[in-house]
Amino acid sequence: MRMLKGNAIVAQSGGPTAVINSSLCGVVEQWQKSNAPGLIYAGVSGIKGILAGHIIDLGRQDPAAISGLRYTPGAGIHSCRYKVQPEDQVKMIEIFKALNIRYFFYNGGNDSMDTAHKTLLAAREAGYEMRIIGVPKTVDNDLPFTDHCPGFGSAAKYIAATVRETGIDLESVSTKNKVTILEAMGRNAGWLTAAGALAKRSPKEAPHLIYLPELPFSQESFLADVEKVYKDLGYVYVVVSEGLVNEKGEYCFTSGGTDAFGHAQLSGVGEALKQVVESQLGIKSRCNTLGTAQRSAMHFASLCDRDEAYLTGAKAVECALAGQSGIMVTIERISDEPYQSRPGQIPLEAVANKEKKIPREWINEAGNYINQQFITYARPLIEGEIDIPMRYGLPDYVTLNLEKGRVN
Amino acid sequence: MRMLKGNAIVAQSGGPTAVINSSLCGVVEQWQKSNAPGLIYAGVSGIKGILAGHIIDLGRQDPAAISGLRYTPGAGIHSCRYKVQPEDQVKMIEIFKALNIRYFFYNGGNDSMDTAHKTLLAAREAGYEMRIIGVPKTVDNDLPFTDHCPGFGSAAKYIAATVRETGIDLESVSTKNKVTILEAMGRNAGWLTAAGALAKRSPKEAPHLIYLPELPFSQESFLADVEKVYKDLGYVYVVVSEGLVNEKGEYCFTSGGTDAFGHAQLSGVGEALKQVVESQLGIKSRCNTLGTAQRSAMHFASLCDRDEAYLTGAKAVECALAGQSGIMVTIERISDEPYQSRPGQIPLEAVANKEKKIPREWINEAGNYINQQFITYARPLIEGEIDIPMRYGLPDYVTLNLEKGRVN
Repeated sequence: MRMLKGNAIVAQSGGPTAVINSSLCGVVEQWQKSNAPGLIYAGVSGIKGILAGHIIDLGRQDPAAISGLRYTPGAGIHSCRYKVQPEDQVKMIEIFKALNIRYFFYNGGNDSMDTAHKTLLAAREAGYEMRIIGVPKTVDNDLPFTDHCPGFGSAAKYIAATVRETGIDLESVSTKNKVTILEAMGRNAGWLTAAGALAKRSPKEAPHLIYLPELPFSQESFLADVEKVYKDLGYVYVVVSEGLVNEKGEYCFTSGGTDAFGHAQLSGVGEALKQVVESQLGIKSRCNTLGTAQRSAMHFASLCDRDEAYLTGAKAVECALAGQSGIMVTIERISDEPYQSRPGQIPLEAVANKEKKIPREWINEAGNYINQQFITYARPLIEGEIDIPMRYGLPDYVTLNLEKGRVN
Repeated sequence: MRMLKGNAIVAQSGGPTAVINSSLCGVVEQWQKSNAPGLIYAGVSGIKGILAGHIIDLGRQDPAAISGLRYTPGAGIHSCRYKVQPEDQVKMIEIFKALNIRYFFYNGGNDSMDTAHKTLLAAREAGYEMRIIGVPKTVDNDLPFTDHCPGFGSAAKYIAATVRETGIDLESVSTKNKVTILEAMGRNAGWLTAAGALAKRSPKEAPHLIYLPELPFSQESFLADVEKVYKDLGYVYVVVSEGLVNEKGEYCFTSGGTDAFGHAQLSGVGEALKQVVESQLGIKSRCNTLGTAQRSAMHFASLCDRDEAYLTGAKAVECALAGQSGIMVTIERISDEPYQSRPGQIPLEAVANKEKKIPREWINEAGNYINQQFITYARPLIEGEIDIPMRYGLPDYVTLNLEKGRVN
């Protein structure tokens, strides 16, 4: 295989996860130790930053800060949500040419894999040889062809711990507030919502009901379900997805706006259902909306997830230096118990813009809880905790200097 | 001092904290190792349980479960919110007499200290010799005469970590959602809201604005504040109390109901302000409402808080066996750096139904942030983490058997 000489660029896209920086760290450290044929740049704020010329040489960062990305949440080189236009693709290739960038590692979800794929087509069109590899990332776990996505395990662990803790709280206080609703992230796929079930050790324990975006939501059935559990136990813990849909496939609750990709901005499912329970059943309720804490709670992230996030980043560099291009690194599961996985790969165009949902047979017949298959699938992904340096009682996360080593 | 022979009872009251069970553990273990003059009972579900006759002999529990209370959130022997009536006091003394209960340890907030005090008066009235000691508990930190309350440090630590993590998330994504609002617990005192400031390491970092219930909230000033930070940084992180009040001292946002003590049920301050920012400033916003996770997040509780919670419980037993009664154990601060504290005490009637708020001079002049005095005060209280046995990637909390050892 011919060595392609030139520099590399890495960028992050979309909502961060607790471990997206571990993938970044994997890319940078693997590049640096591979006797690679050039510099490793970062596009600051994803594609938008590359287009705006905000590109830095990551070799100029303190190696301790790069290493600290392993335990730092957020997007260390910042990310964006931006739908690339055809003229942007042309401009991007110009920028890559000017900096002799021959390797592009793009860390994101399904929109980003589409962008990466189109960038590769634009490079071919321009007759510019490049190797482009996608690194998967999303708390939503909705990327197809990979057993799971880096980012999911950590968010799932945090949500499950929160359900266990707030479930114990709910059960232990004799007050009027006897229904707790936790609203979980996951636009169209219920993986994070279902993760609440990992909390349950016995039938009495939380959660009791789970409503996923995979199935149409019926308010009538919901109220009947809540009432039944309330009669049995005296308290009810419900986990709901932010993206519940009705029979027609329309979101049950939206705030009206849309994001850069035309996706509906969701909000308020939990709060709306709290009001439904109070007005229809007369039971005082609480709603906990963890919001962005779900995707940034590094203080209780999964070690398994973190290590896999690092490995997918490192593997992307390995693949590119070995001559591969136009693929996304995947995670293949070898076994459940003991859990084992290895990196795999899939063409970018296969994964672009597709969503993976929870299989129907993993959801119970009534559509208000998940089956054992999900537990078997998700449990290993939340194993292990991460050591984080602490200062004054709080995690002492690192910060990269995003102005240092600017190329222009 | 004459030894008062008889049994003891312990009960928990109000909303749980991450460490209320550590105080319970301190009471039980100290009683058991003190060659105490009787059994140690629990009133299951607080005063309501005692009145209903749900009383168990804690000596019958597995000692490993009692010990595990040190790392288990929720109210291990369940709690209630219930305003005791004069006839209840008479009935309670009858129950105590019947079981030869001479010691009563009540773990709760200011309402509970009032209940404990009235119970003591009822016992005196009935000519029944008893020793009653209050053990402080509240995430709100609003009990007077104690430097701080067990429960506050753990909730403060979790909130500060969440602000740091979601603040990094906010800063690192270039999207439309550039205002994040975190709503913190604390009905009339802003201690937990202010705790968000512990997250800040540099001026650019979250939080940027803090609104406390100690000062009247002005929507006009709020919008001007948000707009200014947005112009300077491009993103704004706001921490608000659930109990913001207007110039007249009325809650700005309530859901209409009241609890058993006539306190207004609050909800939706954060969500309401998110809508205000979006409609008035045209900046897309997010609201994170951690809800009961704030008071139950044992997975990131403070070791300092946990150890002090245990000590206040143990000290209550020590005081009672030494002949004291009618007091609440307090925490006295000896020094800030290195942080040192010791148990103190205050008459129950002094503390009953009183609230401690943040001093005006600890809040900045503009009323939109807190001063260094608060940081100096709060920082030591969030130090240290707690080892928790893990199973399948989640904290494996203990459960007491609340039917075992029932006295009737």
